[in-house]
Amino acid sequence: MTGFTVKSEQRAFGGTQGFYEHESAACAGPMRFGVYLPPRALQGERVPVLYYLAGLTCTEETFVVKGGAQRVAAELGLAIVTCDTSPRAARFPGDDESWDFGRGAGFYVDATEAPWSSAYRMYTYVTRELVDVVEGGFPIAPGLRGVFGHSMGGHGALTIALREGDRYKSASAFAPIVAPTRVPWGQKALPRYLGNRPEAWSDHDAVALVGKQRFAGTFLIDQGDRDQFLERELQPRLFEAACRAAGQPLTLRMQPGYDHSYYFVSTFVADHLRHHAKALAVVD
Amino acid sequence: MTGFTVKSEQRAFGGTQGFYEHESAACAGPMRFGVYLPPRALQGERVPVLYYLAGLTCTEETFVVKGGAQRVAAELGLAIVTCDTSPRAARFPGDDESWDFGRGAGFYVDATEAPWSSAYRMYTYVTRELVDVVEGGFPIAPGLRGVFGHSMGGHGALTIALREGDRYKSASAFAPIVAPTRVPWGQKALPRYLGNRPEAWSDHDAVALVGKQRFAGTFLIDQGDRDQFLERELQPRLFEAACRAAGQPLTLRMQPGYDHSYYFVSTFVADHLRHHAKALAVVD
Repeated sequence: MTGFTVKSEQRAFGGTQGFYEHESAACAGPMRFGVYLPPRALQGERVPVLYYLAGLTCTEETFVVKGGAQRVAAELGLAIVTCDTSPRAARFPGDDESWDFGRGAGFYVDATEAPWSSAYRMYTYVTRELVDVVEGGFPIAPGLRGVFGHSMGGHGALTIALREGDRYKSASAFAPIVAPTRVPWGQKALPRYLGNRPEAWSDHDAVALVGKQRFAGTFLIDQGDRDQFLERELQPRLFEAACRAAGQPLTLRMQPGYDHSYYFVSTFVADHLRHHAKALAVVD
Repeated sequence: MTGFTVKSEQRAFGGTQGFYEHESAACAGPMRFGVYLPPRALQGERVPVLYYLAGLTCTEETFVVKGGAQRVAAELGLAIVTCDTSPRAARFPGDDESWDFGRGAGFYVDATEAPWSSAYRMYTYVTRELVDVVEGGFPIAPGLRGVFGHSMGGHGALTIALREGDRYKSASAFAPIVAPTRVPWGQKALPRYLGNRPEAWSDHDAVALVGKQRFAGTFLIDQGDRDQFLERELQPRLFEAACRAAGQPLTLRMQPGYDHSYYFVSTFVADHLRHHAKALAVVD
């Protein structure tokens, strides 16, 4: 079992919200993560787990504080894991020059370009290393694992579910980046992390992946129609068209009046947790 | 009608979370406040309003972001108003030397000692000026007004409800300071704001007030038994004893395992909103 240290543990909705730190090989230094355990986990039951991936500039704390997910997670008996959005200990020139690349903007890829490749390996971190630490150290039911996220983290959730369909049973996203190879955020970050290799970029583009890889479940996506990034960066209709062409089940809900904020995320988080609980066969 | 400017308005749980700014006479400068309007207020209905008073170091944003109250407020059709914990524009020597006096620590009193008396008048601000601005500018049902708060804000809620029983129909508190004249936080702040006048301090001490003033409703208080401030600063049993002696209805719930944080507040906020809704005759 991989070790971790407890930074804090606090009672919340009959369960425990904890923050932990561990040495990450993938990210070449200490990383922090959060785990919410529902009441039934404290009573000795092993519970399904959802991994939440946050958006640009966020940390392992953002969703915990602003997402309002613990109440429903407690009811449904789901653990929720949150993690950071990039390595923090390793520092490279230019890593804090902009908010959409470098620190807080790992894009859930394994960088292959120096110097990023020595630490910016968030794909391996999220899908392997963090999973091993959490599922070795907390009472998690084997194989009952889902992934979801917001914006850049929604991109992470969709691409991970498509590429690792045998490891994740449920997936959803709030206002995800669905086609990073076609929008400014992705066109800035992917070449810097992955080099001038369009085929490598496509491996992290949900629209490009959905024709090649299949996720066995149904994706749930919520998107606010007043989202300030909708037209330029998000474009969920591209994913809807690709899913339709590929026969990939998707529920895309346009939510009138909502923007890109955590007011939007928290409004619909209960629906997402129920979507996961159903896919994980926790509820009917 | 007193004017205010809109800082932001965002859709949340079918309603609107807004932040606003206005010129305060009581606080001698601009003050910010938040208003959550539930869906039925957007449909033209006038709704009951709860004023939430925050604790030491907090602002008008704290409860909005961390309290998780909007979901239930939307269901019950309640508006929630949040405000700052002290003046911000007026600056005086020593106002930021400690976290429990001065900025972020107005204790919901009208200071009578110079220089604080020129701006630190949070009692008048909360009970009169803010009420006039909000109830003149938003669709609030006349006379359907409750007050609640956390820690220092719980102290504010209890003392305001006792002193202004004709103006507030419902009241509750999370981990309130109930006897500031007997505990370090109050013994530090009250003499500085109110001078060496013990009778003035007692006017802001819920335990001292409850024998002299009566609140027509039932107080609801939740208190975590792992709260780090329980023994030194809070001591809710003092209020329980005073209420019993005075025949003042009180429901005091000790919550096992909970600390002083917003994980505690958010866990029980739904119960508090239902308590208010019942007292305001919104639900049975």
